[in-house]
Amino acid sequence: MTNKKIKAGIIGGSGFTGLELLKILSKHNYVEISFVTSRTFKESAVSDIFPVFKDYDKEKLIYIGKPEEEDLKNTDILFLCLPPLESMKFLKGIWNGYNFKIIDIGSDFRIKDPVSFKKWYGSEHISKNKLSSFVYGLTELNKEKIKESSYVANPGCYPVSILLALAPVLKSNMEVKDIYIDSKSGVSGAGRKLADEYLFTNLDNNFYAYSAVGHRHIGEVEQEIKNIGGREIKVSFTPHIMALSRGIFTTIYCKLDGIFKKDGAEEKIFNMFNEFYEKKPFVKFLGSKIPQIKNVAGTNMCMIGANIDQRTGTLKIFSAIDNLLKGAAGQAVQNMNIMMGFEETEGLKLNGFF
Amino acid sequence: MTNKKIKAGIIGGSGFTGLELLKILSKHNYVEISFVTSRTFKESAVSDIFPVFKDYDKEKLIYIGKPEEEDLKNTDILFLCLPPLESMKFLKGIWNGYNFKIIDIGSDFRIKDPVSFKKWYGSEHISKNKLSSFVYGLTELNKEKIKESSYVANPGCYPVSILLALAPVLKSNMEVKDIYIDSKSGVSGAGRKLADEYLFTNLDNNFYAYSAVGHRHIGEVEQEIKNIGGREIKVSFTPHIMALSRGIFTTIYCKLDGIFKKDGAEEKIFNMFNEFYEKKPFVKFLGSKIPQIKNVAGTNMCMIGANIDQRTGTLKIFSAIDNLLKGAAGQAVQNMNIMMGFEETEGLKLNGFF
Amino acid sequence: MTNKKIKAGIIGGSGFTGLELLKILSKHNYVEISFVTSRTFKESAVSDIFPVFKDYDKEKLIYIGKPEEEDLKNTDILFLCLPPLESMKFLKGIWNGYNFKIIDIGSDFRIKDPVSFKKWYGSEHISKNKLSSFVYGLTELNKEKIKESSYVANPGCYPVSILLALAPVLKSNMEVKDIYIDSKSGVSGAGRKLADEYLFTNLDNNFYAYSAVGHRHIGEVEQEIKNIGGREIKVSFTPHIMALSRGIFTTIYCKLDGIFKKDGAEEKIFNMFNEFYEKKPFVKFLGSKIPQIKNVAGTNMCMIGANIDQRTGTLKIFSAIDNLLKGAAGQAVQNMNIMMGFEETEGLKLNGFF
Amino acid sequence: MTNKKIKAGIIGGSGFTGLELLKILSKHNYVEISFVTSRTFKESAVSDIFPVFKDYDKEKLIYIGKPEEEDLKNTDILFLCLPPLESMKFLKGIWNGYNFKIIDIGSDFRIKDPVSFKKWYGSEHISKNKLSSFVYGLTELNKEKIKESSYVANPGCYPVSILLALAPVLKSNMEVKDIYIDSKSGVSGAGRKLADEYLFTNLDNNFYAYSAVGHRHIGEVEQEIKNIGGREIKVSFTPHIMALSRGIFTTIYCKLDGIFKKDGAEEKIFNMFNEFYEKKPFVKFLGSKIPQIKNVAGTNMCMIGANIDQRTGTLKIFSAIDNLLKGAAGQAVQNMNIMMGFEETEGLKLNGFF
Repeated sequence: MTNKKIKAGIIGGSGFTGLELLKILSKHNYVEISFVTSRTFKESAVSDIFPVFKDYDKEKLIYIGKPEEEDLKNTDILFLCLPPLESMKFLKGIWNGYNFKIIDIGSDFRIKDPVSFKKWYGSEHISKNKLSSFVYGLTELNKEKIKESSYVANPGCYPVSILLALAPVLKSNMEVKDIYIDSKSGVSGAGRKLADEYLFTNLDNNFYAYSAVGHRHIGEVEQEIKNIGGREIKVSFTPHIMALSRGIFTTIYCKLDGIFKKDGAEEKIFNMFNEFYEKKPFVKFLGSKIPQIKNVAGTNMCMIGANIDQRTGTLKIFSAIDNLLKGAAGQAVQNMNIMMGFEETEGLKLNGFF
Repeated sequence: MTNKKIKAGIIGGSGFTGLELLKILSKHNYVEISFVTSRTFKESAVSDIFPVFKDYDKEKLIYIGKPEEEDLKNTDILFLCLPPLESMKFLKGIWNGYNFKIIDIGSDFRIKDPVSFKKWYGSEHISKNKLSSFVYGLTELNKEKIKESSYVANPGCYPVSILLALAPVLKSNMEVKDIYIDSKSGVSGAGRKLADEYLFTNLDNNFYAYSAVGHRHIGEVEQEIKNIGGREIKVSFTPHIMALSRGIFTTIYCKLDGIFKKDGAEEKIFNMFNEFYEKKPFVKFLGSKIPQIKNVAGTNMCMIGANIDQRTGTLKIFSAIDNLLKGAAGQAVQNMNIMMGFEETEGLKLNGFF
Repeated sequence: MTNKKIKAGIIGGSGFTGLELLKILSKHNYVEISFVTSRTFKESAVSDIFPVFKDYDKEKLIYIGKPEEEDLKNTDILFLCLPPLESMKFLKGIWNGYNFKIIDIGSDFRIKDPVSFKKWYGSEHISKNKLSSFVYGLTELNKEKIKESSYVANPGCYPVSILLALAPVLKSNMEVKDIYIDSKSGVSGAGRKLADEYLFTNLDNNFYAYSAVGHRHIGEVEQEIKNIGGREIKVSFTPHIMALSRGIFTTIYCKLDGIFKKDGAEEKIFNMFNEFYEKKPFVKFLGSKIPQIKNVAGTNMCMIGANIDQRTGTLKIFSAIDNLLKGAAGQAVQNMNIMMGFEETEGLKLNGFF
Repeated sequence: MTNKKIKAGIIGGSGFTGLELLKILSKHNYVEISFVTSRTFKESAVSDIFPVFKDYDKEKLIYIGKPEEEDLKNTDILFLCLPPLESMKFLKGIWNGYNFKIIDIGSDFRIKDPVSFKKWYGSEHISKNKLSSFVYGLTELNKEKIKESSYVANPGCYPVSILLALAPVLKSNMEVKDIYIDSKSGVSGAGRKLADEYLFTNLDNNFYAYSAVGHRHIGEVEQEIKNIGGREIKVSFTPHIMALSRGIFTTIYCKLDGIFKKDGAEEKIFNMFNEFYEKKPFVKFLGSKIPQIKNVAGTNMCMIGANIDQRTGTLKIFSAIDNLLKGAAGQAVQNMNIMMGFEETEGLKLNGFF
């Protein structure tokens, strides 16, 4: 750990994820912001656009439209908070000539197989040769690789809630037949899109499923299921939108065989989860207690619970995260901490909303 | 249809369901309220306790503690809005000697098998011989029986949202392997319980699963699955609580075989739903469009959509209802209309909240 | 009252007010819809755009872009639900040649003085000579005039909540010095505008004042204060936005003189309110009990309470309405009922949301 | 500033304020918790009761029922988070014999005049002789006194939002005639009371005024108005409850004389506010821009805006705070920082919820 602060640049610093990232990095003991971009608000002070930043924005950080060469040279780590297909375009021209590490919070470098990428994102990848350079940045699963890596693809918000819940089962020798995943997300998951469906009057008191067939995060989830457990399992995934701003709650139904017949199945499964997560600062396994959004909103925590339904041979796993933190900006800073040799929890001890 | 209004008595008229029932019956063209009970508010005027009733409560309806014999004699139809195990106690003493019809909105007469009742409700049924006299009151499925019946057991709120979504599939010759049911309910589903977990500060911005193993409504759902389709299927059911007052959204995952391989599977399934519901005034099938809570809140409607996930061989069915109306009081009035020979929609053309 | 239904045309039937109007008129015993316009949704079925209409839309009402001459000829009453400055433009070409009555739910014909109109709306009125033909449609104050009138200017949502609360005081001989009005509105008051500030993520958990100086409704309020009590009083008015969809809560501080020194002030003031409203079906005075949004949401009611603060010589008056009903569409139907000789409450016995 | 951490004890650490205090102190660089009490949860681990504490509760802090003498001896600063009349009872027995400083977040030592105390709190004060030892802990106004003091009475949540908004005006030579204060609070302001009115179903989509005459915070506000400006002004105050968890928005109407006639009134007033607050880290004056709850929720900030209504001679001042932070626990830590010689913002750089 060095005495000097590293310099972080942020591409896309006015969306929900960019703002959370900016908040965390602004108070991080070993980071200073080298620049932050926003097409919409360029040349405005961050704290004029978002008054909540008046709290700690001493130097009146100003949004720039895009970074100059000097900005990039002056950067140790680059965070990208861009919509699908935008990160690869931005990086296209700047792969060479700079020394910064990269954390892409966007979705362009998560899927490693270009054919799969095209299937789920509908476009050809324009930097296929870079795909394998990016480590899939779910710290709890890939910490060692992240430590060695210069490029990290931060996972999607739903996949974080799904893969952390499934990992201990996938790593075990339990036989998993089918997996049904029913996720519920707060509205901020959609970003700050100006569309009729995101108006207050359309969402207040409302709830519904969307993209019930073929949501893009499936590709990422199935890839990592294979990476974690060596098995190919097709998952049935349904995202829903909840009338609240932040949080994802995921309910997973695993059809299992064998283990339920034996005595002590619950104890065995709970031990498995406890061992898997006991040393991980940002994941807590609650046993049969079911987590709640309010346990994690405003924090970088993932909380997990599990129930065994003997009647139907189903293992139900429940997970809760804050989609903008453990599902995006917090996860990214956790990865940065690992890449830079800082303590994993630095800057991430957050008070939460409840 | 007679010129004279029938007289309706309400046992338990200050809970959420009782209030909605009172609202509907107060404006029903062919009903007058003979009495309404409330232990908590006895001797108070309904409109003093619940100012929303000032709108139309001309005669200052007064809550009574319990009905006198004359009240009961003067009643054509009795509605019970009581917690589990209470309806059967109330009715114990009055099976004989009165001529009224009964609609039990409580849960005591839904399950027909006393062994199953004991399993799900934890108590011996005290009027086992009456169980078979009650028709299961899901109008869309049992209209003819309800027409002939004096006693109706109104279905539970979750089961309404589940069984209406599943019925066309169960009635068909499609081979259903597994059924996973993920339901999300508004807070009013829990009734007006004074418990820490129902405080605003605990539910606002929150979401979670509860009773993930062994929720009582499973017994009722599996019984009716068998009645509808002649098949024994064990369902895996998880209820969740949403931070909103009214509405249930149910997502069902049906693992199917065969049909998905053929061309035209979607058309065939959609036709099946359309035919099943085209003449039913309170169920609308939306095809592949997913219903929303806001489409049904404040109405007696159930809206249903379906998506076919070819990748995993899963039929996803989505349904939305207002838990207090189609899931309770509205469903009860629909049953009353059928039992009394009124038009099915009488009193139930409601404006909705959106 | 005639056996034949009257024909109502709606200009602007896809905004919040238009939809509520459509809902009420669809179930009104003496009305049928002759046409309904929507620029956005023309040629679509109302129930395809807004599934909640599937409930009762038997004949698949279709939005038209604008009415043909035959549509207008075939109309007994025309409702306009248009933004400021739009009603006068629409009516410009059709003042002559048609026999329909008009209820303008927009704001163009409320202010009678063209100079004042220009001051508050920033534009010259283009039909000044018609201003005096429109009766200010607050039924509780102008019922007799409305009965005789062909043209009614429906009041603004804030003014309804303010003027009903103030009327008994203004009509009395109490000496009012200053009036401070602090109103809080649900989000639907802004209409269905696609603007960043109305996104769910900007309003959820939020609250703030807006247009704190010079809100347009002040002109209308001060005009009617003069009409009611013959006094010119300038009011200080601040609107606020609440994170909920429907309802207005208004808190009024009246600096009074004299009466507070005397014994029995409260009784005198309460009697004054009770007498003023005892025969009005849609206004309830609750005495010192403070009304709540939940008492009125989803109904055409206005509930009013009053507290006397002896320490500061202030009469505090509280009122609650549903901004889309008593503050817009419900009020309009109430006016129509009076103009057409129907019972005042016809079509307006609504269940409310709580 | 010392290298050694000070030891803080918390009386009442399971209410909303106690929890926020615990969160802040747990991460404060110069504090460790010596003990925390809770009658309800004694002998339970904080993080078992409130899972959000799993994040950073390394040593499994356990609630105790009440502190032993050794606990108190081992404490440098004592925080009391108790309901009205409880702090004075707790302190009764322990005024002597201990060296800790005290910050009472309760309401017992705010009002200095025992007669006034009895008027507003309905009980005789049991430690009248201690009243003058407590400095009124609104840091922005009494920083120098707080620095020298051992006992601080933390201000009430409404008074913080009111007095910070009024202070620059009261300190000026502007002639203030009347002050009307309309405050709106989130539900957490009421604490975690198990009462029907605080159930989710009663508050969701609701809004109303309460305690419209004689709210206890008036006594405190009028006392401090006199302390700040040397003037006796009676204020008319109305608190309201909003359907959200955290935040207070206060709208103040000041009837002024003179200044409005002159040119440059706005500039003069804005300069006055800017000068008053430019060096205060936790208060931001936004000029004519109106603050919003979302600008401050989850932070220790107070944001203030002002509008001048020339038509009525009214200065409108708007302020927004988080009631549990700047209105309670955050304010208390700010005071502790001053009393202990730490940097004022230590432990209080919070990310906020938006």
